[in-house]
Amino acid sequence: MAGNSFGKIFKLTTFGESHGQAIGGIIDGCPAGLEIAIEKIQQELNRRRPGQSAIVTQRKEPDTVEFYSGLFEGKTTGTPIGFVIKNANQKSKDYSHIKDTYRPSHADYTYDEKYGVRDYRGGGRSSARETACRVVAGALAKQLISEIEINAYVASVGEIELQKKHNELDFSLTETNPVRCPDPATAEKMEAYIKKIRSEGDTVGGTVQCVIKNVPKGLGEPVFDKLHAELGKAMLSINAVKGFEYGSGFEGTKMRGSKHNDLFNNDGSTKTNLSGGIQGGISNGMDIYFNVAFKPVATIMQNQETINSEGESVEMQGKGRHDPCVVPRAVPIVEAMAALVIADYLLQNKTSRI
Amino acid sequence: MAGNSFGKIFKLTTFGESHGQAIGGIIDGCPAGLEIAIEKIQQELNRRRPGQSAIVTQRKEPDTVEFYSGLFEGKTTGTPIGFVIKNANQKSKDYSHIKDTYRPSHADYTYDEKYGVRDYRGGGRSSARETACRVVAGALAKQLISEIEINAYVASVGEIELQKKHNELDFSLTETNPVRCPDPATAEKMEAYIKKIRSEGDTVGGTVQCVIKNVPKGLGEPVFDKLHAELGKAMLSINAVKGFEYGSGFEGTKMRGSKHNDLFNNDGSTKTNLSGGIQGGISNGMDIYFNVAFKPVATIMQNQETINSEGESVEMQGKGRHDPCVVPRAVPIVEAMAALVIADYLLQNKTSRI
Amino acid sequence: MAGNSFGKIFKLTTFGESHGQAIGGIIDGCPAGLEIAIEKIQQELNRRRPGQSAIVTQRKEPDTVEFYSGLFEGKTTGTPIGFVIKNANQKSKDYSHIKDTYRPSHADYTYDEKYGVRDYRGGGRSSARETACRVVAGALAKQLISEIEINAYVASVGEIELQKKHNELDFSLTETNPVRCPDPATAEKMEAYIKKIRSEGDTVGGTVQCVIKNVPKGLGEPVFDKLHAELGKAMLSINAVKGFEYGSGFEGTKMRGSKHNDLFNNDGSTKTNLSGGIQGGISNGMDIYFNVAFKPVATIMQNQETINSEGESVEMQGKGRHDPCVVPRAVPIVEAMAALVIADYLLQNKTSRI
Amino acid sequence: MAGNSFGKIFKLTTFGESHGQAIGGIIDGCPAGLEIAIEKIQQELNRRRPGQSAIVTQRKEPDTVEFYSGLFEGKTTGTPIGFVIKNANQKSKDYSHIKDTYRPSHADYTYDEKYGVRDYRGGGRSSARETACRVVAGALAKQLISEIEINAYVASVGEIELQKKHNELDFSLTETNPVRCPDPATAEKMEAYIKKIRSEGDTVGGTVQCVIKNVPKGLGEPVFDKLHAELGKAMLSINAVKGFEYGSGFEGTKMRGSKHNDLFNNDGSTKTNLSGGIQGGISNGMDIYFNVAFKPVATIMQNQETINSEGESVEMQGKGRHDPCVVPRAVPIVEAMAALVIADYLLQNKTSRI
Repeated sequence: MAGNSFGKIFKLTTFGESHGQAIGGIIDGCPAGLEIAIEKIQQELNRRRPGQSAIVTQRKEPDTVEFYSGLFEGKTTGTPIGFVIKNANQKSKDYSHIKDTYRPSHADYTYDEKYGVRDYRGGGRSSARETACRVVAGALAKQLISEIEINAYVASVGEIELQKKHNELDFSLTETNPVRCPDPATAEKMEAYIKKIRSEGDTVGGTVQCVIKNVPKGLGEPVFDKLHAELGKAMLSINAVKGFEYGSGFEGTKMRGSKHNDLFNNDGSTKTNLSGGIQGGISNGMDIYFNVAFKPVATIMQNQETINSEGESVEMQGKGRHDPCVVPRAVPIVEAMAALVIADYLLQNKTSRI
Repeated sequence: MAGNSFGKIFKLTTFGESHGQAIGGIIDGCPAGLEIAIEKIQQELNRRRPGQSAIVTQRKEPDTVEFYSGLFEGKTTGTPIGFVIKNANQKSKDYSHIKDTYRPSHADYTYDEKYGVRDYRGGGRSSARETACRVVAGALAKQLISEIEINAYVASVGEIELQKKHNELDFSLTETNPVRCPDPATAEKMEAYIKKIRSEGDTVGGTVQCVIKNVPKGLGEPVFDKLHAELGKAMLSINAVKGFEYGSGFEGTKMRGSKHNDLFNNDGSTKTNLSGGIQGGISNGMDIYFNVAFKPVATIMQNQETINSEGESVEMQGKGRHDPCVVPRAVPIVEAMAALVIADYLLQNKTSRI
Repeated sequence: MAGNSFGKIFKLTTFGESHGQAIGGIIDGCPAGLEIAIEKIQQELNRRRPGQSAIVTQRKEPDTVEFYSGLFEGKTTGTPIGFVIKNANQKSKDYSHIKDTYRPSHADYTYDEKYGVRDYRGGGRSSARETACRVVAGALAKQLISEIEINAYVASVGEIELQKKHNELDFSLTETNPVRCPDPATAEKMEAYIKKIRSEGDTVGGTVQCVIKNVPKGLGEPVFDKLHAELGKAMLSINAVKGFEYGSGFEGTKMRGSKHNDLFNNDGSTKTNLSGGIQGGISNGMDIYFNVAFKPVATIMQNQETINSEGESVEMQGKGRHDPCVVPRAVPIVEAMAALVIADYLLQNKTSRI
Repeated sequence: MAGNSFGKIFKLTTFGESHGQAIGGIIDGCPAGLEIAIEKIQQELNRRRPGQSAIVTQRKEPDTVEFYSGLFEGKTTGTPIGFVIKNANQKSKDYSHIKDTYRPSHADYTYDEKYGVRDYRGGGRSSARETACRVVAGALAKQLISEIEINAYVASVGEIELQKKHNELDFSLTETNPVRCPDPATAEKMEAYIKKIRSEGDTVGGTVQCVIKNVPKGLGEPVFDKLHAELGKAMLSINAVKGFEYGSGFEGTKMRGSKHNDLFNNDGSTKTNLSGGIQGGISNGMDIYFNVAFKPVATIMQNQETINSEGESVEMQGKGRHDPCVVPRAVPIVEAMAALVIADYLLQNKTSRI
């Protein structure tokens, strides 16, 4: 119940607090016989890593993944894949300022209410550090579903929005700028805006969009486990996410059926794709695309009034090295979760027909 | 894997096609000793039922639920609660027009691609008729969590939006109009608009908002099974849903952290509630509120070009009695799914501490 | 958690008390496209049905299964298969004698301790009537795995044991006698013994043996979900079962490794089969065989001292129509559970390799 | 599906091959606030460790467990508990003799058939080394259920059987001899017999019995997840186990109901306990006791004919340091699995009543 697992057949379970000895996980259910390129997994981790550019947190975390099992002579063996990422310098810091103080819009208060105890060092289990394990598993899942292309990118930072539609973009440009926006002109504006926000000790939210191409038809289960329902849960489980929409999304609610329906071509593809590649919870072979909303990072470099565990008012002074905007680093996490969902449904789908 | 179950401890499994002999389900894991008012369950079913007002489908389905087990002398016994809703007139209709024809933006095509076979009578398993079973289970869950108030209502129909915020509404007004919008003036406009749309043989989308009050602190699991992630999955699993957002949602992505953070009062409540009652995936005792986006109903009373299973172009003539706008009837379904999620987490939470 | 489901991919969930309105279940995860012979399912039910011969209970229960969903034009559609077996005369009897009295070695006392409430009519959920639902699902599973032969039979009744080994038997003889022992001479002795026991108002235990032929190699998961572990759980979940052993079983503990090891033939088969067709939890293609121990039926036609719910001593007079020995009717149940296990692992195995 | 997890609420997932870099696991769902004595966990590991006495394998494996998460200031935090046991000298050995050769009655052949690939070093995942992780989790579970006493011991080695019954034993004697038999005289005979068997290069089987005292009433779920069914699965999932029986077990099949029924005392306890503390799958507060059958270790120090992966006959020469009889080291593993089952049901039971 404790909810540290994701997936049914291709299943990831993670452990670890941000400032414990290590984080890690177990990937169970990866089919045997898959050749794994470890360096590609590390590359994905590097995309998520702190300190990679001027607009993300400057914390130093090498984030080197070690695999302990499940791989033999370069291939998966069908047995569980255990991995560990050691935490650097996990004992050196001073956390007395947050030990008994609840940071606003963080999980300090709710953890204490739920568990009666809390590893207060740097957010503990509620830290987004946990997502490094998801990136490891997602990078492995990507290798299992290598024919499917998963492309996430930043679609907005605060009020600055990418104007091009998801099918007008050149995804090869995403990694050419630190914001991870595939439109260089917009990326520049976003970068400048993030720097400005940071200089003010503030943070800002944004959205990540993701396009999945070459999805086989028939993925997803029709009732509770609709493909988009599981994608939605996957995305909403990422730290700081406030919303998910796919295909026409919230805008689609304003349309009429006569405009919203995707008419068929004779090959079964559709002339439009407001369905977002999913009908009745099952993929139809068209591109899947969706948006994920991230709130502004809660840790700001300003003083805030808050309370301690006794309910007394205290002033909290922002400090540390935090992201002024989370979306650039969220891009590989969104891709990882999408890969986990798709890989799992591909495996599930092997049993849908005799 | 086939995904016809929802919940971990309080668990619903459903079966049934729209035009088979019956639909039904099993509720497993409801604690023993709960007094059940069957008539309240039927009342919830009646809220979902076709034919209840002039703006919904005029199909006749009595939707009477029969309980076969798990209840004894008015109380739950801890054993599984099996129930059945017989389908009326399930054999009488003619479905030859959709037997080999794929309705645009329906699940006909994807079911055929996934399973190679399809119960083509009226949508079969992909019909929203399945949600009647969710309403039964949700109504039972509501009785388990009777101290918690779940209020859903229509927040928009097409471009017509409720202007009041979720905390400015009088929920006792929701059921006073057929649209289920708690603001009578807006409800009137919505009703007129739905009638106009229907007269044109068209359909329109909308949004349902839901507010949950009196939620205990500490519900939700912190990583993959965050409270809002499971709520999101629950909502996205409802037919025609395209998006989910909670708290500040997509609008919150445009805000700065200094404005978005919810500062504490000394009692642990917060001065604002952009978090939507959930922090780090765990309830903080404030109101939970969220929006659910529904697309326009795909079945329109207009002619559409489409294809048959041979890939040949055919013309499809709209017929039958369908909803011009799904959101009024979706309100009890949203509430039911919310009740299932909350009931399950309440039970899960009994094991979070020694 | 409430444990009314069995299986991971091919998954059965059951509901129903012995004297409620109906029992039934949902089979989720049966692959689409399987032709189903309903009459074969009813035949299996008839093998379990009371009143089928002179040595079983003479209660009258027609046990007719009705399917409500998941089948269309004679084939599975991939959607959940809901079914119901109505209980005959469920309201007519008088249960006042057991309402407040705990029958020795029944589940009355433990249900009350667990739930604080109990459907006291005829055992309620603890009645072996629930196994009718397993027989339905097992009969369907048999059709999915039709190339695999599952043969259960009575191997002992009290002290009377079948002397032939599992690989010396002609399974076509099993159904030629009411005991379901494939050795006619032994069957006769068993039958006479059961009649004698019954005439004394007593009951007796016995064992059922099961042989599974033509099992593909590679079924089973290597650690917690070993093939024999799941078979064992399946059998131990049947009412009145006290033990399970496979291959050499308890006798094998007395052997030396040099005698116990199954040496290979060049085709991968083994010269002996003390392993019982399973090595390291995975099938090796040899016959799987196992024994299941059933205790004597707890309801005897004799007076017994017992207590009521107040802890007062009361005398209980045996009455009703009960089985003097459960093993003849247990044979189809053992086969059904074996079929469910094998079907589930066959589906699981589709994902074990790329 | 891959089956490397055990438990529903208190859930263990393990990873690791015998000769990879490390083995380890994640314990998810342990309630927050439990004080943990790490040294007691290490003590249990030491009971399982090779080289602890003259009658077990003389391999050197320090088996030191490191905890990476989920514990803070000596207490559980409610977050997943990740742990690792490094493998000593895992790269140094030569496995060329088993790389392409299938050891009789081992899992080499079935792994190859299932996965098409196999980590051939020392048994890989099929090695009983994996059970060290179970002992870690079981030792933690014991601390959660500290009021319940779990006592396993060796009840037979080959033909040498403990004559005393489970309720005539002094469990404080179990650890006073290397065989772990609580009857010193029998232990001596067993020890001598094991030494003799080893001197002949052979191995022998045996049984482990386990008695669980102070079990609360009401544990276990009544249908598929009966308490004894889950205990049975737990035991059958241990390497080399061939059978499981509880209470009267296989012997009980020979009894009559009039003798087998456990009559009540007025306090709800029973005069006899042939039920083994479980009625209808639910604990009744009496001692739970069961027997587990272990086959003789397959690796013998004698030459055996076998085949290689090409199906060619080859001779295999026994070598290495292996256990002549597995039951002494199996005792803590049986206890660990029992603790996992009981802990899980205790947590599950918190949701059985309102």
